[in-house]
Amino acid sequence: MTIEFNRILVNHGFTNEKALTCATIFSENSLDGVYTHGVNRFSRFIMYIEEKCIDVSAEPEIKSRIGAIEQWDGNLGPGILNALNSTDRTIALANEFGIGCVALANTNHWMRGGTYGWKAAKAGYVFICWTNTLGNMPAWGAVDSRLGNNPIVFALPFNDEAIVLDMAMSQFSYGKMEAAKVKGELLTFPGGYNKEGNLTNDPSEILESWRTLPIGYWKGAGFALLLDLLAAVLSGGLSTHEISKSKYEQSLSQVFIAIDLSKLAQSSVISNTITNIINDYHKSAVEFPSTEILYPGERVLRIRKENLQKGIPVDKIIWDEVTRL
Amino acid sequence: MTIEFNRILVNHGFTNEKALTCATIFSENSLDGVYTHGVNRFSRFIMYIEEKCIDVSAEPEIKSRIGAIEQWDGNLGPGILNALNSTDRTIALANEFGIGCVALANTNHWMRGGTYGWKAAKAGYVFICWTNTLGNMPAWGAVDSRLGNNPIVFALPFNDEAIVLDMAMSQFSYGKMEAAKVKGELLTFPGGYNKEGNLTNDPSEILESWRTLPIGYWKGAGFALLLDLLAAVLSGGLSTHEISKSKYEQSLSQVFIAIDLSKLAQSSVISNTITNIINDYHKSAVEFPSTEILYPGERVLRIRKENLQKGIPVDKIIWDEVTRL
Repeated sequence: MTIEFNRILVNHGFTNEKALTCATIFSENSLDGVYTHGVNRFSRFIMYIEEKCIDVSAEPEIKSRIGAIEQWDGNLGPGILNALNSTDRTIALANEFGIGCVALANTNHWMRGGTYGWKAAKAGYVFICWTNTLGNMPAWGAVDSRLGNNPIVFALPFNDEAIVLDMAMSQFSYGKMEAAKVKGELLTFPGGYNKEGNLTNDPSEILESWRTLPIGYWKGAGFALLLDLLAAVLSGGLSTHEISKSKYEQSLSQVFIAIDLSKLAQSSVISNTITNIINDYHKSAVEFPSTEILYPGERVLRIRKENLQKGIPVDKIIWDEVTRL
Repeated sequence: MTIEFNRILVNHGFTNEKALTCATIFSENSLDGVYTHGVNRFSRFIMYIEEKCIDVSAEPEIKSRIGAIEQWDGNLGPGILNALNSTDRTIALANEFGIGCVALANTNHWMRGGTYGWKAAKAGYVFICWTNTLGNMPAWGAVDSRLGNNPIVFALPFNDEAIVLDMAMSQFSYGKMEAAKVKGELLTFPGGYNKEGNLTNDPSEILESWRTLPIGYWKGAGFALLLDLLAAVLSGGLSTHEISKSKYEQSLSQVFIAIDLSKLAQSSVISNTITNIINDYHKSAVEFPSTEILYPGERVLRIRKENLQKGIPVDKIIWDEVTRL
């Protein structure tokens, strides 16, 4: 899969090194079961390049540095490469100051936010990052989508892997809803409103109305607003209402924060602290015997293992579309 | 109200200065309409002092400093004073490094998290802070409460005031549910499960079962777990499962992060950026003409204005209880 992605990216003007990096991330996202931001998204990524929303040769540039904060301009380069660069810079700042922050303007979709959380957490850092998006979710009580669903990631190391929470502010991400629609499945809970203004668990109806339900109703809507405000303010980049003016989703604003755990006074006991918390969490009493209590990222580890053994399941139609690129 | 709180606190061993600070915060929380963490909570605060959960003469101590991060021990002092000290230290670190972080162990309930967000944001900072709590919310799919509802605050300056999101991970805070129960009101949405395992919007049933509903179901539960992990790991303090072993909620762990906006390259346009985002947000099309689209903190400003004009509404039973202390 990586070889095929790599071939297509080189054909679309990527250098060998950048093509391999992006191809690897698309494959890893698929390996981890996040198909919506892996193989299933690859064709749209190429379409964005062809539409000149993504400049494959752009390099991110530093705009300013203030102590442990750096502001970068992504110059509309590939979102994955800009986010990886920001992750590396944030880690470097954390190495120097204990905590570091990078705010990135004018970037493109980073695909799966968890990519950067896994990377930093496996290297020993607490990592928080978020992105804004185009308007795809209404304010609480509203019918038009002026908020983004602005995914946020919280990650920290655990055993040689990580605990990674990667969540959009909508109850179901558009990726999840699109996947459910393709499979002809209903959502497990209402995920938004239909055009008639009624709550529905039919993903097709929500993808038609664009009235997704924020997590926790007014709370997720408020959280989405704050994440957009902070991303635009800290990066000096565009906010959701400005991004929404373009035909395609581009020129996003993102924030990355890292903390170097190895520098903390009690760093030698951190691993025990985490293990004890997770052990207690796993002891939760369940309502139904079949229920499993999993921490964020635990299912990803299982899917990764399974996909490594059995191969990544790929929809034939989607793969045929990729190989024709 | 402040004078009465002050009198009682001095009688319970507070110095004049500390008594006035705490009394002012309890009054301000009430003035802002957060009665559950203002006047309605004051008697319980005094009870905690009498039960020796709160050491009125304890001073917070710095344990370590690593660049822009400080770790503090709250020594079980009053949560308000420890959180105010942490806010001040976080701001001082942000002044020095652009971004600063304080992690605080062994503290007590900070009452209203928004207090610290309003303070820092009004002074020109982006502010993020969160606390863990005792176990009061089940993992997703579980029936026992091994997670805290761990409130988190995101704040930034706006006009001479602030935009402040202050939210617990449960759909309704215990404070809100208690207030609704006292008024005999139902919740506007299901807020948890009753003892029979059915979703309910009756606050009495949820206060009995302690099965609160996390915001966004599995998402809020995962978020709560991560906030507890980060609070315990960064501060070296207790996590929810350890706090839950005590009879009373004490020895909490908290994290504070500030960013100094005045140092950013584009600081002169930040106020415009925020205004433009809020203006667009306010333009949201509503389903019902009576719906108002408010940003987090906007209702607080209105209540504050109203209470300043008309006085703070206080339940007579609660006030009689306070004056007898």
